[in-house]
Amino acid sequence: MIKELKNLTPKDVNFSQWYNDIIINADLAENSDIRGCMIVKPYGYAIWEKIQKKLDSILKKAGYLNVYFPLFIPKSFLSKEADHIKGFSKECAIVTHYRLKNSTKGIVIDPDAKLKEELIVRPTSETIIWNTYKKWIQSYRDLPILMNQWANVIRWEMRPRLFLRTTEFLWQEGHTAHATKKEALQETLKVLNIYTNFVEKYMAIPVIKGIKTQNERFAGALDTYCIEALMQDGKALQMGTSHFLGQNFAKAFNVQFFNQKGIKEYVWATSWGVSSRLIGALVMTHSDNNGLILPPKLAPQQVVIVPIIEKNKKNLIFLNEKITNIIDDLKKSGISVKYDNSENKKPGWKFAKYELKGVPIRLTFGMNDLKNGTIEVARRDTLTKKMISINCITNYVKILLKDIQKDIFQKALNYHLTNTTYVNTYDEFKNNIKNGGFIMAHWDGTSKTEKQIKEETKATIRCIPLYEDLTCGKDLITGMTSKRRVVFAKTY
Amino acid sequence: MIKELKNLTPKDVNFSQWYNDIIINADLAENSDIRGCMIVKPYGYAIWEKIQKKLDSILKKAGYLNVYFPLFIPKSFLSKEADHIKGFSKECAIVTHYRLKNSTKGIVIDPDAKLKEELIVRPTSETIIWNTYKKWIQSYRDLPILMNQWANVIRWEMRPRLFLRTTEFLWQEGHTAHATKKEALQETLKVLNIYTNFVEKYMAIPVIKGIKTQNERFAGALDTYCIEALMQDGKALQMGTSHFLGQNFAKAFNVQFFNQKGIKEYVWATSWGVSSRLIGALVMTHSDNNGLILPPKLAPQQVVIVPIIEKNKKNLIFLNEKITNIIDDLKKSGISVKYDNSENKKPGWKFAKYELKGVPIRLTFGMNDLKNGTIEVARRDTLTKKMISINCITNYVKILLKDIQKDIFQKALNYHLTNTTYVNTYDEFKNNIKNGGFIMAHWDGTSKTEKQIKEETKATIRCIPLYEDLTCGKDLITGMTSKRRVVFAKTY
Repeated sequence: MIKELKNLTPKDVNFSQWYNDIIINADLAENSDIRGCMIVKPYGYAIWEKIQKKLDSILKKAGYLNVYFPLFIPKSFLSKEADHIKGFSKECAIVTHYRLKNSTKGIVIDPDAKLKEELIVRPTSETIIWNTYKKWIQSYRDLPILMNQWANVIRWEMRPRLFLRTTEFLWQEGHTAHATKKEALQETLKVLNIYTNFVEKYMAIPVIKGIKTQNERFAGALDTYCIEALMQDGKALQMGTSHFLGQNFAKAFNVQFFNQKGIKEYVWATSWGVSSRLIGALVMTHSDNNGLILPPKLAPQQVVIVPIIEKNKKNLIFLNEKITNIIDDLKKSGISVKYDNSENKKPGWKFAKYELKGVPIRLTFGMNDLKNGTIEVARRDTLTKKMISINCITNYVKILLKDIQKDIFQKALNYHLTNTTYVNTYDEFKNNIKNGGFIMAHWDGTSKTEKQIKEETKATIRCIPLYEDLTCGKDLITGMTSKRRVVFAKTY
Repeated sequence: MIKELKNLTPKDVNFSQWYNDIIINADLAENSDIRGCMIVKPYGYAIWEKIQKKLDSILKKAGYLNVYFPLFIPKSFLSKEADHIKGFSKECAIVTHYRLKNSTKGIVIDPDAKLKEELIVRPTSETIIWNTYKKWIQSYRDLPILMNQWANVIRWEMRPRLFLRTTEFLWQEGHTAHATKKEALQETLKVLNIYTNFVEKYMAIPVIKGIKTQNERFAGALDTYCIEALMQDGKALQMGTSHFLGQNFAKAFNVQFFNQKGIKEYVWATSWGVSSRLIGALVMTHSDNNGLILPPKLAPQQVVIVPIIEKNKKNLIFLNEKITNIIDDLKKSGISVKYDNSENKKPGWKFAKYELKGVPIRLTFGMNDLKNGTIEVARRDTLTKKMISINCITNYVKILLKDIQKDIFQKALNYHLTNTTYVNTYDEFKNNIKNGGFIMAHWDGTSKTEKQIKEETKATIRCIPLYEDLTCGKDLITGMTSKRRVVFAKTY
């Protein structure tokens, strides 16, 4: 099912097409016949499983318990929090009936099986969960509640793009309940830091941590914290969000608790999530014109071994034998290895295939190597090769995997820094935004200016960064005083 | 959130209520406000994760690749295979619109956002998958395809019961494509054996492997293989199914391939699944009037340690110190341990709580034990206790976990065998079926007789067993010759 490499559009020619070509050609996913819904293929799903497994173990260690809430949300639940329904009403899949029947016109909806109340396929689970927390929370002793679920969600998407924006996507959503505002705020930031560490250490993608403006907030949140990364086309991608929901959902669902003084209070809430969009970020951050580049920590296969089989195939038996030990050794060190000794494809084809698939290290091994006690090691990220003594190969690979993980992060960080510009006038801003990148500029804090800039340049405020130094300045347009720079960028 | 034990209805008084009481009181799950949909709570979900993790690794080793297909299936896809739509049309959740809007009547469906074609929330994924396989399969070289997905599915349920029958449930569904009938048949049986091994070795539940009668077949299958287990109320529960689909779906979706001779043929198919219903089976097979009994291999916590804290609490520091080493040792041996040194509950309350939750082994440890170098070990399955020298405790626990796993299987097997009756007349049949159990009887192979027996006794043919010896006999009702006994039982 692997396609030939020749179909890959060069990145500089058409970034968007290059992105799609990699996803299709590296067999990560494909569009389905249901508009906006994708099919995640085995290789793409294996990357998602890697992400899931690692993040799940981090969340579990931090005390979050996994749970599963229903797929369906009654319309009345979704409508209870005013901002929430406003934000999600335009992208809801609505279930209205529960039975089909045979008729002279073929299979049709059975009109007798109309639901009394429509059900919405969850776009997110705050409402169904807070409707339940109401039953679980009476006293401060029941708090905090720290829960997480891995689930599919539906947000009807008019302009779908594989992994980045799909009608159905896979994600985790955390939902916590707290006795105090302070604790809920700390929780929001704690998770933001978990996401930051995960994305930087495992995905090798540097991010800016920040807080969203009112326009860009999650529907129903008092504050939305986010991490934003810069893709290779100079556009920003939101990687994850952590919402401080205040008492909005507690009030909407009347969730109160008796505090230590015996007084009734509304519960404080957070919610947070990352999704299968992260796979899109991996593609757009690291990859090149030869295909995917995967960080070793998330690569389904970290090493591929390609033997150089001679025409008469007689040497394969010797190569197989020698390689068995190497494979065992690598596996014992916890490294995932694929040995591709298939005879129907030439080494060059295999090289191209595993480059396309982003396997971090390729080992090549022929009769000369057998004689010389060497093995050729190729790095996917730099496409460089080196001859290594066969006796040190496991150790070398172990260190090299760490180096690659570090180096691709550093490369992405260099790009991120090189493409972050500080501007002080609107002309500078307009000149720079054409080339993409993060633009750090002063903003007067009004939606009006934010909207004007968006209309005139298509750039939006990605976030008000948390770690930006607080140097005063003047708004680009109005000249009003600004206490800090914010991050502008174009996005998808 | 733990309820008191006193609410548990005794098993013999009302089995169905006992079952529900355990699920609610052990905090496995609860009903949601969406009829038929349940909330799987952290403890129940932890068991599901254990099942999932183990079965997933078995399936991966056997060569199945995980994948993810869309939640929505166009009505026309579902309708393509005649038997399939007949079987599922009565339990479909149907999405008809994709947007809500604000109106004077509140939040309503936006009539302008009506779908051209209704989407069905997947009750199972054969149709969407075979619609895709059509694009993936051209030649025999593309075969076999061996895929599996972990997903949620919806089958509208009029009489829901927690875990056993819910409108939404979690499952895995495998879908394979083959070049020959023989290979597809072998695949069907291979998976049946995987399920049998998993259920017997990990869940400690003995099963009968068999084949369904035409009436009980999966909608769209040529043959449905199944494993059936006997619950403690004498009713049978279907634990998993593996379907030989023949060329039905290949024909419905026109999936053909060129065989090695260059001739076009339709592809052969199988599909198979087990679901979160397995958790219901765990409850109904092993548990008792004190609560859950979990097989050690699937228990989220295998050992709980309860210190006997003296009134002044001064001894806790000594106990904590000594126990740290024991916990470390147990964890090093791969055993999951919970140490409950909370001070607000008495040991007796804790004992009852962990019995309710089915933790296989409880260790109790007080000042006397500290002096004597002993620790009290209690088995959840037999409720027996023993004093063990603290120096051998890790080893003792390791062996005991294995023993418990073996013993509860043996206990379930004894029940299974004791409640399997061979009858030769319809009177015997009617007398025996009142008490439940599996009844092995001769059947003439006709749907007519099968239906008559069902109407008169509520018993159905669970399966035609694969390992039953082929002794001829006469049908209970018609007296027609029968080549083998089949398994009758009542079910849920």
